[in-house]
Order: sequence, then C-alpha cells, then structure tokens
Amino acid sequence: DKPLSLIAGPCQLESRAHAHEMCQALTELTGKLGIGLVYKTSFDKANRTSLKGQRGLGMEKSLPIMAELRETFGCPVLTDVHSIEQCKPVAEAVDILQIPAFLCRQTDLLLAAGETGKTINVKKGQFLAPWDMKNVADKIASTGNQNLLLTERGASFGYNTLVSDMRSLPIMAETGYPIVFDATHSVQQPGGQGTSSGGQREFVPVLARAAVAVGVAGVFMETHQDPDHAPSDGPNMVPIKQMPALLQRLMEFDRLAKAA
Amino acid sequence: DKPLSLIAGPCQLESRAHAHEMCQALTELTGKLGIGLVYKTSFDKANRTSLKGQRGLGMEKSLPIMAELRETFGCPVLTDVHSIEQCKPVAEAVDILQIPAFLCRQTDLLLAAGETGKTINVKKGQFLAPWDMKNVADKIASTGNQNLLLTERGASFGYNTLVSDMRSLPIMAETGYPIVFDATHSVQQPGGQGTSSGGQREFVPVLARAAVAVGVAGVFMETHQDPDHAPSDGPNMVPIKQMPALLQRLMEFDRLAKAA
Amino acid sequence: DKPLSLIAGPCQLESRAHAHEMCQALTELTGKLGIGLVYKTSFDKANRTSLKGQRGLGMEKSLPIMAELRETFGCPVLTDVHSIEQCKPVAEAVDILQIPAFLCRQTDLLLAAGETGKTINVKKGQFLAPWDMKNVADKIASTGNQNLLLTERGASFGYNTLVSDMRSLPIMAETGYPIVFDATHSVQQPGGQGTSSGGQREFVPVLARAAVAVGVAGVFMETHQDPDHAPSDGPNMVPIKQMPALLQRLMEFDRLAKAA
Amino acid sequence: DKPLSLIAGPCQLESRAHAHEMCQALTELTGKLGIGLVYKTSFDKANRTSLKGQRGLGMEKSLPIMAELRETFGCPVLTDVHSIEQCKPVAEAVDILQIPAFLCRQTDLLLAAGETGKTINVKKGQFLAPWDMKNVADKIASTGNQNLLLTERGASFGYNTLVSDMRSLPIMAETGYPIVFDATHSVQQPGGQGTSSGGQREFVPVLARAAVAVGVAGVFMETHQDPDHAPSDGPNMVPIKQMPALLQRLMEFDRLAKAA
Repeated sequence: DKPLSLIAGPCQLESRAHAHEMCQALTELTGKLGIGLVYKTSFDKANRTSLKGQRGLGMEKSLPIMAELRETFGCPVLTDVHSIEQCKPVAEAVDILQIPAFLCRQTDLLLAAGETGKTINVKKGQFLAPWDMKNVADKIASTGNQNLLLTERGASFGYNTLVSDMRSLPIMAETGYPIVFDATHSVQQPGGQGTSSGGQREFVPVLARAAVAVGVAGVFMETHQDPDHAPSDGPNMVPIKQMPALLQRLMEFDRLAKAA
Repeated sequence: DKPLSLIAGPCQLESRAHAHEMCQALTELTGKLGIGLVYKTSFDKANRTSLKGQRGLGMEKSLPIMAELRETFGCPVLTDVHSIEQCKPVAEAVDILQIPAFLCRQTDLLLAAGETGKTINVKKGQFLAPWDMKNVADKIASTGNQNLLLTERGASFGYNTLVSDMRSLPIMAETGYPIVFDATHSVQQPGGQGTSSGGQREFVPVLARAAVAVGVAGVFMETHQDPDHAPSDGPNMVPIKQMPALLQRLMEFDRLAKAA
Repeated sequence: DKPLSLIAGPCQLESRAHAHEMCQALTELTGKLGIGLVYKTSFDKANRTSLKGQRGLGMEKSLPIMAELRETFGCPVLTDVHSIEQCKPVAEAVDILQIPAFLCRQTDLLLAAGETGKTINVKKGQFLAPWDMKNVADKIASTGNQNLLLTERGASFGYNTLVSDMRSLPIMAETGYPIVFDATHSVQQPGGQGTSSGGQREFVPVLARAAVAVGVAGVFMETHQDPDHAPSDGPNMVPIKQMPALLQRLMEFDRLAKAA
Repeated sequence: DKPLSLIAGPCQLESRAHAHEMCQALTELTGKLGIGLVYKTSFDKANRTSLKGQRGLGMEKSLPIMAELRETFGCPVLTDVHSIEQCKPVAEAVDILQIPAFLCRQTDLLLAAGETGKTINVKKGQFLAPWDMKNVADKIASTGNQNLLLTERGASFGYNTLVSDMRSLPIMAETGYPIVFDATHSVQQPGGQGTSSGGQREFVPVLARAAVAVGVAGVFMETHQDPDHAPSDGPNMVPIKQMPALLQRLMEFDRLAKAA
C-alpha cells in the first residue's frame, strides 16, 4: 500500500501564467508535505451545463503549456480527453489521460485512450453502479494497457444532487486497479444553479476524510486561488490556501488507514 | 396537438435484409393503423456495457441501407450519432439525428448535429433533471436549428435501475419542443445482467400508456421479431407481433388525451 | 373491472361545519358525475414535520362528526389510525381504516386494524419497494380480513422529493387487492419548506391521469376550498372548484383503460 | 470532543441466558479496549418485513432482564420503544430510549419519550433528509429534555437499498446533539430477501471507519456470536469475535479525528 497521492489543479487551464502559478504553488506545497502530485488541468470543458459557460483555451494552445509544466515542475500532468482524435496528441503532452464520467461507457474512446499506452484515469459515471466499472476497465485492458485508475465522483441521487457511496471504493478496488476519490466533483450539484452547477465546498474535507479512512490510492481535488471567480466549478473547488492543512490531515488518515 | 407519432425499429441495423423486413413490417402496420412512423435503427452501439457486446454494421455499410429504406418505404429514418464527424454524413442519409442520453451534455456534438439543419432528437441523460434539458436544447437552438425533439428515457434510481418520472413530460414541454417518451429504454436495467443490461419488457405498455395519457408528441419503442435473440437490448424490446394491439391502445389514449 | 372510485376530502377535520360543507360539496359533485365517493378526513395529523404544525380536533371530538357525515350524506368515510388503541373506536365511526405510509410496517397496528373487520387502506411507505407490500398485506390478511386496499403515494428520490413509479401499480395489483393512487401526497416535497412539507399541486392531474391510464381501482386526492389557507398539506391539495373538470377527465381515462 | 462510545448488542433479546452472555462478553471486551459501552437489545421487533419473522420476548419478560443487565454489568442499557404506553415502564428499566427510524416523525411518541427525562436516541428515517432531523429534535426538546442522540442509518436509494451519506453527520451535528453512526443497519437491504431483509456485513467496517474519520460521538453496531443463526438482522450483524479488532481500528481513527 503506497502512500496517498494527490491529483490537483484548477478546473480549467485559464492561461499560461495562471497554469505556471498554480503548478508552482502545488509542487511547492506537496513537496513540503511529501505527498506525490499529479497536476490536473483541462484544455476544454466539453460538457458545460449551458452554452454560455466558458470552455477554456482549446487543445492546440494548451498542449504545449502542459508539456512545459511537466518539464518545468517535474510533476506528471493529467488532462481529460473527449474524442478519439484527441487521445494521441494529448498523450504526447501529458502523463495521464482522463475519461470524463459522462463518457465512461464510450467504447471507442476507452480503446483509443488505452492504445496510447499512457495511464488512464476513468471517472465512474453518475449513472453507474460501482461493480459496472469492471466492464469499463476490461474495455481498456483489452488494448494491453493495464495502467488504469478508477475514480469515484458521486452517484445520481434524485435531481441535481449526488451522493458518495463509500462502499464503492472497496467494490471498485476488487478490479485490482488503484482507486481515486474525487472529493470536489462529489460535492457538485449538477445543474443546480440553473445555467451552471452548484457545489458544496464545505463538504470536500468531510468526504475526502471518509474516503481516505476507507483506503484509496489517491485523492482528486480541484483547487484555485480564488474559486468564486473561477470560470468553472467555482462552487466546489477548494481555495488553495486551505490545501496545506487539509492535505496534512488526509495524510495522517492515510497513514493510519494503511498501517498494518 | 397533432396525433401521436411512433419512433420504432430494432436496436441495431443487423443486416440489409433484416432492415428491409423490419421496416416493411412497421410501415405496413403503422399504415393500417394510421399512425405516423419514424423508422429507428443504429449503425453502431457505441457504449455497450461490455466489450463483448456486438456493435453493429458500422457507419459506412449502414448509411446506404438507411438511405435506401427511406426511399423504398417512404418513411423518415432516425439514427444516433456519437461524434462530430458523424453528423454530416449521417445527415445525408437520414431525417433525424439522435443524441444518445450519455452524450446529451457534449456541447460540440450538439452543435455539430444542430448545424446539419436536420431534426435532432435528444435523449435526456439518466443523470439529468428534466428542467436541465432547457440548457441542452438552447445549445442546439444556438445554431439556428429549432427542429428539436426531447426524449424522456428514465432517471437513475439507485443502482442498475431507472425510474420514469411522468412530471418530466410537462416540465420538458415548457421548452416548446415536442416531447417523446422512450418506453423501451425506460424499462432498462443498466448493467443489470453483469456484462449486459437487463430489462423489464412487461412494463413497456404500462409506462407507454401513462406517458401517452399525460400527453406526448411521440412514443419511441424498440421492436424486433425475436427480441430474445437480438444482438442488443433484447430484454427490453417489444416483440413486433405485440405492436399492433399496443399501438391501437396507445392511439386511443392519445386521442383522449388530446381531446379538447 | 369496476369503474374508478374517488377517495377525497380535506387533509384535516377542521370543524363540524367545515366537514359538513366539504362532504356535501363532494357528495353533490360526485353524484352528478356518477363516481363513487369515499369521504376522507383525519382527526389527528400525528407526524407533522414540525411541532408547530396543527394536529387537528382529536379523536374524541372527531369520531361523532365522522359518524354523522356517514349518516347525513350516505357515503363511506375513511380516516387514518396511528395506534392499536385507536382501531376499535375508529372502526365504529367509519368504514375504512387507513394505515399511514410511515407506519405500514408496524405489525401490531396492521393486525389491530385487520381485526376490526373493516376495510383497510394501507399506504405504501416511501421507503418500500412495491413488491414488499405483499408482506404488508399478508400481515393484515392473517387476521382473516381480506378487505384491503393498497395505495401508492410516491417513493423517496434523493432528499425532500418523491417520485411516482407507475410500475408500482401493476406490481402491487399482483396481490389481488384493489390499488389506489394517491395523487396529492405523491407530489409532496417532504420537509421541503423547512418546518413543513412543500408540494407541487400542478402535477396532481398529470400523475392522476398517468395512474388511471395504467389502471387503478381508485384515486385518492385531498381537496379544500382554499388550500393556501388550510392547516396542513396546502401546497399539494387540489382546490375543490377544480375537482369537477379533473374528475371528468379521469373518468374518461378510466373508461378507456377498462374497456375490453 | 469526548472519545468514541459504542452502542452494541444483539438485535433481539433472545433469552435471559443469551443476554447475560452477550452483555458479559461486550463489557469485557470494551473494558479491555477502554471504550464506553451502551448495551443495546430489543424486546420486540415491531416492524419485521414479514409476519413470520420472530418478534422477541415481549416487554413484560424483557424489562426485568434489562434492569438486571444494567445492575450486573454496570453498563447503560438502550432499547427501542414503539408506542406511547411503552415509554414510562421502559424508562424505569433502561437508560436510553430509542425511537425507531420508521417512527421518527410520530410526534406523540417523541413527546412521551422525551417526557421520561431519559436520554433519547432517534434514528433518522430512511425517508428523511439530514436537515429535517432538527424538527424531530425540536419536538423532543420541547418537553424540556435535551438529552438527545441523533443516529444516521442510511437513506433510501432506489428499491431495497440504502446509501450512507457522510455529509449527514456534520449536518445533523449542527443541532448541537451528539451524532451516532449505525454501521449495521446502514448496510441493510430492506426487504431484500423477499420475506426478510438482506445485508452486506462486509461493508460494516468500511462505513464505520468512514463515519468515525468524519467524526461522531458514537458507533452503533449489532453483534451476535452466530449471526447466521440469529432470529433477526443476521445478514448485517457483526460476529462478536470480529469486534475487538474492528473496535481497536475505530478507536485509532477516532483519536486521530478528534486530535486538535
């Protein structure tokens, strides 16, 4: 049982300067704490609630910045892909390809991602039972690529609400793949603000603690220096200044959870 | 309030011969009953539960068959699209492009479909509240294309189960677009058979009746001459020999629902 | 298949005068329409969301009024019981004892109600699957009393929300007992206004129509001359002046549903 | 923040001998571990899924045994009450009265329990949102009795399934009352075995750990020396021989959760 890793970063790649600033801040703080960091960022928010939501810089402008972050800060970079065509070029710029939750059953996307040979992080669909992720993982593994992460990010619970079922973590772990808990999307209220999603930022530490106590390989958290003015997912991102204390606590719980 | 239409056909385009047989059977029976038919078929099952599920003939082989059906039988044809690239060629062969439920928030797919100028049928995601479909419709309408249909096909209700909320029909109708009730996918049990989805075929007439009584523009039902041996969605498809009696009943309820 | 019956009345027995007024109005209007009426009223709201909610006149004052209504207007009267002790005296004043949804698994209450020999209407718990009502019915039937009605009134769907699963009606009907659809409690939003329940009155006709089209023995609807000023359940009661048109429509759907 | 307490015991009071055996075993093992024990037992299973389920010894035979346990083993005893009449006599034999989840909105039961002056443990209904427990607590507190415990035991999630929402713990804690997590009923599958409830015993440690990491005053777990042959709740009770290791782990998580 390796120590907890962190997948963190802002929801969007907002600009080269912002990306450098965030990645520097996160590598510094995780370096001090001794927790492994994967830097997460997105070049395109492909499924915003409303057309008016900002989408991001786009793939062409973003990939060179991602490659640069990796080189400059020495941390692996993760980003999400939404189509078969994106897999190959994205795989050249980053270390981990992420399959968004809504797309976790799209066979061709899973296969194209798998064929890059990169590590693939699949978010469990809000409409999927945890035991159904075995079929999803098997699709990717059929390409010969077994570098998989499976991420819990909440299940549909009535309308505009998610619930985090902690049983999901050991159930998905039966696949043998490392399990990640996405603590910031799990508190999302999808579509909850009419033309954008709401969120319950105050419950991120609650759910993250619970998941780490149960036992996970990693925690995924989106963070921002000023979430209330971020272009997307503000209501559920963690202010970066709260990250050190939160991570320190999570690491304590992780050590305990993984003690013999 | 126009009379009820029917969107029907087998889950997959299995072969040219099978497609002709099914489309002939459906045009004949709907002709006798005087109910408008849209023939539904799919060239690719892009999100099967498991990799082992059959996917279908593929776009290249299927589009000429779809175009031929349209010409031979004189009925509009509907099929689903899963990527931006598919929208244009598919739009040349069929009359209605359908956005699968899992993909109903993928902005670029919605825009590409809308830009074809064809009628677009969007299935409501199992993870979406009915009022959230306004944002989905607005994305397509932004292309100037307002030929939209919105389809209810069940909401996540615990694991491996869907529930049909009849309130969804009038709520989505507030958008002004025609509303369709998908009676066969609404009884699906997603992933319910381990490596494939289960279904409760016996409840198709129950839910269809309820929806038609509430008031809908159309009913969507997958049908097959031998559902138990169909390559996909067998557990929830209606045997075609049961369709005449079922449709006749639904038409009676529709007339009543739409009587002044 | 007998024609649709109506169980209707105000949520609470507010006063003798109000009860007479309501019962007269309902017997007149159902007489004109030719629909069988069971007059529903409650002597105690035993499970209000908050302590501040009004509870009603109490059993002692109410039972004579109920007996009087029955005699004066010639219609059967239904009221709910909440304890073993209430069953016997209540059975002397009314025709149908109702088991509230929260109490549908309380064995002794079911047995005591059954032993009165009166007809028992059991509301399905919001926490119960439709197939679980067989066990509930069996408890009562063990007393030798098989005069049962089973009522659907919504299932928990996330927090503060119910959903009406129309499959529930045929599933419960497999028990052989008449099935009732409670159209006003099904649109309740339990606890949805902080210290009282909210409701979506506008969806009562929608769900009632759906249920009647599927096929039920009766519809249950709470009604009031001024729901917005009623002491309980205002947000989901139907204004009595809307009842004639609504009932007429439901009777049309019922005739069609039960036509050979 | 006081250290974690344990509420534990078998589902039913099976016999005087069995009660002594279980209470002795639990006082010994909690004594060794230094964890506070409340002994839980029930004199009547008042809401069994089916009439055939065993109900227990009954109140008259059980209360003297409960009083004796308290005296013999020096630990507080908790039992559930189902009617107003039971509150007073039960309060003389035990230390904590428990309100079953299905009954948590029955105002008179809450008041009668509160008026005994004893500590009251209210289980949150499977149909209730966590914020709705404030109204429940206020009902009891209106008697002047503020010795309350609020217990999370899962929320309805589709049919025959519960889900444990860890956000519920801090939300209920806002009332100021101690919060308990019921780890064995939270893994129940209500009605899941046709005429009895199923359960997922293997997830008890998972959910208990998660809840303790989030922070609770106590954990509630039913236990038995031979759950598979227990008269009720076997599928979700923890074998008593697994309790020492499980409790030790929970105490470690509790110490960490409550460390400054």
